[in-house]
Amino acid sequence: MADISISKGIDSANVLGSSIQFTEDEPLRLDAGVDLAPWVLAYQTYGELNHDKSNAILICHALTGDQFVASSNPITGKPGWWPEMVGPGKPIDTSKYFVICSNVVGGCMGTTGPASLNPKTAKPYGLELPIITIRDMVRAQAKLVDHLGIDQLFCVAGGSMGGMQVLQWAVSFPERVFSCIPIAAAAKHSSQNIAFHEVGRQAIMADPDWKAGRYFEAGLQPTKGLSVARMAAHITYMSDEALQRKFGRKLQERSAPTFSFDADFQIESYLRHQGSTFVERFDANSYLYVTRAMDYFDLADDFEGSLVRAFAGTTTRFCLVSFSSDWLFPPSNSRTIVHALNAAGASVSYVEIETDKGHDAFLLDVPELIVTTQGFLNAAAHARGL
Amino acid sequence: MADISISKGIDSANVLGSSIQFTEDEPLRLDAGVDLAPWVLAYQTYGELNHDKSNAILICHALTGDQFVASSNPITGKPGWWPEMVGPGKPIDTSKYFVICSNVVGGCMGTTGPASLNPKTAKPYGLELPIITIRDMVRAQAKLVDHLGIDQLFCVAGGSMGGMQVLQWAVSFPERVFSCIPIAAAAKHSSQNIAFHEVGRQAIMADPDWKAGRYFEAGLQPTKGLSVARMAAHITYMSDEALQRKFGRKLQERSAPTFSFDADFQIESYLRHQGSTFVERFDANSYLYVTRAMDYFDLADDFEGSLVRAFAGTTTRFCLVSFSSDWLFPPSNSRTIVHALNAAGASVSYVEIETDKGHDAFLLDVPELIVTTQGFLNAAAHARGL
Repeated sequence: MADISISKGIDSANVLGSSIQFTEDEPLRLDAGVDLAPWVLAYQTYGELNHDKSNAILICHALTGDQFVASSNPITGKPGWWPEMVGPGKPIDTSKYFVICSNVVGGCMGTTGPASLNPKTAKPYGLELPIITIRDMVRAQAKLVDHLGIDQLFCVAGGSMGGMQVLQWAVSFPERVFSCIPIAAAAKHSSQNIAFHEVGRQAIMADPDWKAGRYFEAGLQPTKGLSVARMAAHITYMSDEALQRKFGRKLQERSAPTFSFDADFQIESYLRHQGSTFVERFDANSYLYVTRAMDYFDLADDFEGSLVRAFAGTTTRFCLVSFSSDWLFPPSNSRTIVHALNAAGASVSYVEIETDKGHDAFLLDVPELIVTTQGFLNAAAHARGL
Repeated sequence: MADISISKGIDSANVLGSSIQFTEDEPLRLDAGVDLAPWVLAYQTYGELNHDKSNAILICHALTGDQFVASSNPITGKPGWWPEMVGPGKPIDTSKYFVICSNVVGGCMGTTGPASLNPKTAKPYGLELPIITIRDMVRAQAKLVDHLGIDQLFCVAGGSMGGMQVLQWAVSFPERVFSCIPIAAAAKHSSQNIAFHEVGRQAIMADPDWKAGRYFEAGLQPTKGLSVARMAAHITYMSDEALQRKFGRKLQERSAPTFSFDADFQIESYLRHQGSTFVERFDANSYLYVTRAMDYFDLADDFEGSLVRAFAGTTTRFCLVSFSSDWLFPPSNSRTIVHALNAAGASVSYVEIETDKGHDAFLLDVPELIVTTQGFLNAAAHARGL
């Protein structure tokens, strides 16, 4: 741990919570081969860091998540996005652990992203922002952890794209991760998942209000395209069974079909609502960047395609969780990782939870998820002397 | 069979093949509660009708299919869409059977659809065309069968939406269907499937060139929206496994990612190609109408929700086929129908074919599909004295 360079970034706070301002001299080296500087990292913390700084848990958010994991989102006014998992008495217990959550690079909740001002042009970056990768996101988080003076995180946890970041943490900074919980994750993005992301991006880019990414200057936003992108993605977050159970072919506030293109079916009305509320809180260009980061993710890429080699020598304790009805990041993805961890001689627990809630299960009230993560963290805390 | 009224429609032929022109006096009664008249039904036939008119097979096409099942499509120049199944020596043997295939009502290949001229306005119907249902499509086909002087079809066959029509034929006109082959079908459209269709429709409607359906008059076409709709739908036609096998994370004509939004991955390039070629052959409003017909499909609706009652007393021979990796119309859908047919005491064969080709398997070279349908049709032909 001797060579950790503590960041010089300057703290500030605004409506989007705490942030660190990194100057021109403190660039973020990106996988795209360029330096991002100056740049900002927005984050929230919960609970207290203990004396020897050994009780920190970093939470990594998913595609459309943010740093407000356990407190009200200032844009939507909604409570934190992981209420079942984070808070006093919850598995990630804020009365016991120091919980950190930052907005990803490329996002739109305070961390530098395509809507941020490009200092070279004094206009929003738009597509002038270099492509961001999952590793870039993790590298940025490491700067935050440096800034907070923490050598080793007690745990890194997250679901979906958050789980990708967790895995990248374990591979990029193995000595800095005592334990980790990648939930509903994968070591690489599948062809089908890239396909769904590409549909979303094409929907955004097809919207004439997108203006090749320069919509802010035109006083516009590609809300229709972004809404379609969200609708398509939202289907993939739910299982066929759950949709059937929740909506089936039930009609929306009518007793007979209208023989029209109105939202006759509840599922149509629900999806339209998902689309129209999403555009109020998310930036279209960020959607392009963050989906692209997921597409590019392939953990074994630096290890000649060998996941086993990626995890070689790791002392991190792993707890993987997947959900039986998750068809976006199916259990087979987690099993592949578990097999590699076993082959690498790592300490690994794996639970495949039987549920019809699909990929979104990681965000929902799933008792087995609570029990699993609580048990794992308690044992890890004991081992860490917490 | 005594009460079949032979249609008075007038035959004609043009670039889109044969068609029947039904006059103002020969309306098509629609489920929406209105009469469509005048109207046109475009169709193709292959092979010879035998003396006692007992060797006719009607083929029903899927969402974006057409009447050119076994001959070159005049728009695309491509060969017939079901080469493995229809032709001399194929299971649906055109040297033995008289094969009929018509374009569905609401389509865009010669049969009356939203791009047809509304005689009341002398402009294309656009959204003034009433909503069409699967039953309407079948009712129109029955007029064609009447016109051809055929009392009973030897077989009705089709996959996907074609399979829905096959099932509707068996329920609406049980005495007119000696045997039938619904492939990769369902007795009702699922919530997830409605959801995917709604995404496609919203993508089209979000395109400013859609102009509330009146794009032809503006000299425009909502090609971007239609392309996104096709891309989203196309993902659902293939299995995750097949995508992984065919494309995986392979890059498109490059050795390293470009760190851009270019189509780096082969799957992206493939999908974009699917979108851009589709818009050259399909009308956006037809896409709205035909997807809506599928959404509204629920075979048991007229029978107080009982599929068993829908099939009560049927003497039709059924052969159902499903594909293990089809997640759009999964085998469970076919099994539900088979159970109902068994409970109704019907003659039914069912084969669930193990393949990774997904929903599109019905259009591809799947030997088990050939063997199954050939065996079934041979036995049925024997029973029918053919």
